[in-house]
This record gives sequence, structure tokens and C-alpha cells, in this order.
Amino acid sequence: MAINYNTRLKKLQDSLIKSNAEAAMITSPANIFYFTGFNSDPHERFMALIIDCRTDEFILFVPALDEEIAANESYIQTIIPISDEEDPFTKLKEKLGEDVTRIELEMKSVTMFQHKQLSSVFPNVTYHDLQPIINEQRLKKSRSELVYMQKAVDIIEKVLAAGIKKVKIGMTENELTAELEYLMKKFGAAGPSFSTIVLSGEKAALPHGTPGERKFQNGDFLLIDFGVITKEGYCSDITRTFIIGEVSEKQKEIYNIVLQSNQAGIKAVKAGVPLKTFDIEARNVIQENGYGDYFNNRVGHGLGIEVHEEPSIHENNELIAESGLLFTIEPGIYIPDYGGIRIEDEVYINEDGEAEILTSFSRELQIL
Amino acid sequence: MAINYNTRLKKLQDSLIKSNAEAAMITSPANIFYFTGFNSDPHERFMALIIDCRTDEFILFVPALDEEIAANESYIQTIIPISDEEDPFTKLKEKLGEDVTRIELEMKSVTMFQHKQLSSVFPNVTYHDLQPIINEQRLKKSRSELVYMQKAVDIIEKVLAAGIKKVKIGMTENELTAELEYLMKKFGAAGPSFSTIVLSGEKAALPHGTPGERKFQNGDFLLIDFGVITKEGYCSDITRTFIIGEVSEKQKEIYNIVLQSNQAGIKAVKAGVPLKTFDIEARNVIQENGYGDYFNNRVGHGLGIEVHEEPSIHENNELIAESGLLFTIEPGIYIPDYGGIRIEDEVYINEDGEAEILTSFSRELQIL
Repeated sequence: MAINYNTRLKKLQDSLIKSNAEAAMITSPANIFYFTGFNSDPHERFMALIIDCRTDEFILFVPALDEEIAANESYIQTIIPISDEEDPFTKLKEKLGEDVTRIELEMKSVTMFQHKQLSSVFPNVTYHDLQPIINEQRLKKSRSELVYMQKAVDIIEKVLAAGIKKVKIGMTENELTAELEYLMKKFGAAGPSFSTIVLSGEKAALPHGTPGERKFQNGDFLLIDFGVITKEGYCSDITRTFIIGEVSEKQKEIYNIVLQSNQAGIKAVKAGVPLKTFDIEARNVIQENGYGDYFNNRVGHGLGIEVHEEPSIHENNELIAESGLLFTIEPGIYIPDYGGIRIEDEVYINEDGEAEILTSFSRELQIL
Repeated sequence: MAINYNTRLKKLQDSLIKSNAEAAMITSPANIFYFTGFNSDPHERFMALIIDCRTDEFILFVPALDEEIAANESYIQTIIPISDEEDPFTKLKEKLGEDVTRIELEMKSVTMFQHKQLSSVFPNVTYHDLQPIINEQRLKKSRSELVYMQKAVDIIEKVLAAGIKKVKIGMTENELTAELEYLMKKFGAAGPSFSTIVLSGEKAALPHGTPGERKFQNGDFLLIDFGVITKEGYCSDITRTFIIGEVSEKQKEIYNIVLQSNQAGIKAVKAGVPLKTFDIEARNVIQENGYGDYFNNRVGHGLGIEVHEEPSIHENNELIAESGLLFTIEPGIYIPDYGGIRIEDEVYINEDGEAEILTSFSRELQIL
């Protein structure tokens, strides 16, 4: 079930040839990883995978200090190192030559600065957006990818099960975060897939809050939203909300509304209907119960080698759901200065167009 | 000694007014943090700080789900939330109006895609690069910032001291990484400032290698390159290289060359000379000892709220060093399939133009 990166790149090349492309330049680290297996953050340095359709050649430009590791980790034959005092665009020009007239590139990754540099070495080249072709390819997850994504979910659920056993009154959000991230590595993850969210009490009302020195108290909400990235480079993302100590009637009420919303969203998932359906079905439950003003973000997002990928599951997305999509369903109710609840699961649309739920951690209200 | 974000933004506004700017749009999360105190990663969503010089107004556009936290964490009065189904550029147009003729923006942050979106709502606007003005301001660290940066160094040195006590033969790179990152949080950091590098044996030859399942063996190099980001948002970055068990004569020889190189680089640091001097002085030691081919990257980089900032300390940088600069000096010798050594310190050029070294962890060869 290993990933065949070369097959992916050949498939992209075929799409490019069909659209009469001459050359493509991929600079997003996630896309370079997707097509080569080389997973690296070049920071401000230049890194690019070039597909030269005219010569049928793949070329990887890397920072000089990453040359050996790139050669070890990717199957690309031609690796061109760029040292810190060299100009990458001049080297690119040497390789692509004078005759190139158009270059496909990722318009959401290439900056205005890079565009200017390119225009100065290639004054007569036109640029076309490569991202839609790549997105189309990355959008659909194969069964081999699903194995890795399930592994990422299994690890985070083990972390969650072990982590909540450590929770006690007086512990801080930061302390629990440290425990959870330690457990991620202990259970074999490369690390968190995004900045771990542990929010207690009224802070649980912040969909993107940051853990701090707040201590857990009796009656607190405890919202944990986190994920891991596996050593193979795949992400997970799950949220569960707990109550510490005593639970109030209002907490139970909103918990049950969010749970019903989560279940309605998941139940709606299938191929053949617009993606917005899943958002609307989940949102309706919250609105019908009078909490519509307290849920003001989309219900979910795709994920894979990045924790946010296509598709976006929001109420205006008319795109038709199809097999291979994998995304979160994560409705929530967030009441400022009071607290909040979110229940987030990962759902895959399988070969039969049906939903498969990757997350299996109990969704019932747990009192810690 | 708290940071006054408002003063920073006013200073930028003054520079903008001097250069006849009408409006500036800041979209890099690090720059938004620098000028507002609001530290947030919007992922693919739109976030921007607008300085409208015509109306003397500051405006913060944030994803709707971050509205409350932005209001809590920044002093900006006008916060405009953008929900997932809205078009941020249309909202920007509503705020800036029809009359704007030029916008300053960060060309290294704004993508070609965003540039296109801007051009469609502002067809007659010209764009100018804002990054140089911001860089100039961020380049020089104040004493208040130095306090936070020293705190980041103090934490990471405590982590290093505690972490190396855990090292034993048979432990894996991943296990040590998990321990180190746990200690970071335990000692009060927000988290690692970049992906922690723990490399053993021949893997220490990879300047940007990734920790894996390799087990520590007798005679191994153990290279640890890591840092923390503090809760106030400042980074540290340090490298030390150890030997596990028995040390060979060749290991001692190259360790001493790197140490001499590190000391030569640091000794050269002062205001009034070109930055390249520090690289050349460190590099000369390695070259004179015949290892020049095994050190092929710049000797250092600036850091602050980001772990890589201006200035870049490389052998062609003619920029004259001045008070307020803070950067690493990190020469190394990397011998493929054998191993490598790097010794990295942080140096600040103080008000008298002299070097102050923030890192104090012993540079002598330690056998673990």
C-alpha cells in the first residue's frame, strides 16, 4: 500500500501535456511532498519541482544544505542545489532556456516578489494557474492514503484516551497541552498537525483560542481540538468537548444540540449532492434550537497531507460530493463569556459513494 | 518593559506618510503580530491589518471565528470579521473606497492569486513593496525585545541541560525529541520555534535532517538544533553537538575546528563592518583546516518573532552591521556518511556596537 509518488507525478504530467503546457514549476512544500516524497520546509529559501514537458524531465531545485537529504528521500534524478549566495531564478533560466513561452505555477503559493523575479529573467513568458489541476488530483484520496489517514486518527484517539485520564482540577491548559503533545510522539506521531487547542471554561467559546495558564475548575467546559501528522506525512484532526466535575442543565442542553448537529451533518454525507448540504443539515439543527447566532463558521474542511485542504464544507459550496473526498464535520456552539462545545469527526466518501467515519472516539458527553 | 505595539504601528504610519502612501495592507501573520500583538495563523483564510493614511485609521480584517480573540488581544478599534462565505476583497473595497490609487503591501507575502483578486476590485491601483520599510523596523531589536529573546534562550538552555541527562545508548532520536519538546512546555515555552532537530551518528551530516528511529550507539555524534517560542512570541535557536560514549581523534579534531570557527565568527561581530565579515572569519578557519568543502551554507541568520529573519549572514552580504541586530553564528562541518558538527550561538550588537552573546551553554566537547 506504499504511495507511488512517481505515478502521481506522471499523472500530473499527462494533464499538463493535454493542456499544452511547456513547463510547470511547483513551489508549495506540500505539493512537492505530494509528488516526490521529499518533505521539507525551505523557510525563505527557494525550492521548486520543475516538470519540463518539452524534454520529459523532472528537476528538483533545493537549498544546497538539503541536497543530500533530497537525494535520499525522492526518486527525482536531477537535483540542482542552490547555495545561499546564488540567485535561484538565474539558475532556473539556465535550465529552462530562452524558448519557454509559458509556465504553469501555483498562483496561491507564488508571491508577487517571486513573480517579479520570474518576469525579469523570463520577460516574455505568460503564467497560468497550476493549482486547480493539482487540487483536482489531491482532492480524491485513494485507499492507500486512507490507510495513513486512519493511522493518524488512531494515534490521536489513543492520545485523547490517555490524555483525559491526566485531567484534574487545578491543572492548567498549558500543562495538559504538554502532556498531549508528549503522548503524540510516544504513540509514534511525527508531531502535532497544528497548534494543539486546549480551552477550558469560558475560553471554550473561542473557536481558535490558545492554551494558557487558566486552571481547570469544577463545572468547566474542556474543549480539545488537535491532531497529529504521521511519519508518512498524513494529518488527523478531531475535537471532543468534556465537562469537568459537575455538569449544568444548560451545558447538557447545548451539548446535545451540537451532538445532534454533528450526527445530522454526518448522516447527510454521500456522493451526488452539493457539499453545502452537509453544512446546511448540521446548521439547521443549531438554528432550530435557537443557537444559530452562536455558530458562525463553516461546518468542515478537507484534510490530507495538510490539515486544511479542499474541499471547504460551507453553506454556499455548490460542488457535487464524490467518492474519494475526506473532510471534517465539526459544528459548534460558542457563547461569548460562557463557553463552547464542538464535536469534530472525519468522514470519507468511499467507492460506493457512502460515508465512512474514520473517528470512533465516543461522542457521548463525558464528565471528567 | 512590555512591548508597546501601538508605538510600533504609529512609527510605521509615519514612515508611510513620509513616502506619500495612501493605504497599506499587512497580511503576513508575523507582521500583524509585530504591529498589533494579535498572534494568529489564519491558514487559508484572509487576515489583514490596514493602515489608512488618508483617514488616520487602523483596521483589522479577521476570519469571523477569530473576532472575539482579536478584540481581546489587540488594541485595534475597528475589527471587521469575514465569514467563510464572504469575499474579503469586496469587503476591503467597501472600506477603502473608490478613490485609492496606490496600496503598499508585502510582496513576499501577497500571492499572485491575491494580487489578481486585488486587481479585479481595484483595477487602477498600483502596488508598492512594504516589506523593506517593515524589515528596517523589525531588524533592530530593542532592549525590551532583548529581554524576551533572552528568556527564550534561557528556557532552551534549561531544556538542553535537562534533556541530555536522559540520553542513553539505545534511545531513539524520536524519543529524545519527545522528551525535549515536553521539557520546553514544562519550562514555560509556548512550543518549539521550529521542528526540533535531533540527529545521531552519520545522520548528523544532514544540516536539515529529521529525527527518526535511529538508536544512539557508542561513538555517535549527537547534534541537537532547536529552540522555543515564548508565550510573548519570541524565538530562540541554539545548536550543540555531543559525542555518545567513546570519542575518536577525528571527532575531536573536527569538533575543535568548528569551535574555533564559531569563536572566530563571534569575535568578529561588531557594528561598522559588513555583515559578510562574520561569515568569512568563521569560514576561513574551516577552510584553512581543509574542511571548506564540508561547510556549504551561510554562517547565520537573524531571528526575533520569527526564527528566520533579516539579516542573512552570508559571505556576500555587504550590509554594514549596526546596533540592534540579533543573529546566529552557526558554522558546521558535515561529512556525508560520516557525521557532522555544528555549534550555534545567538549574538546581539548592543548600543555600544559590541557583541553580547545570549547563549551561555558550554561550548566545550561533552561526552554523554
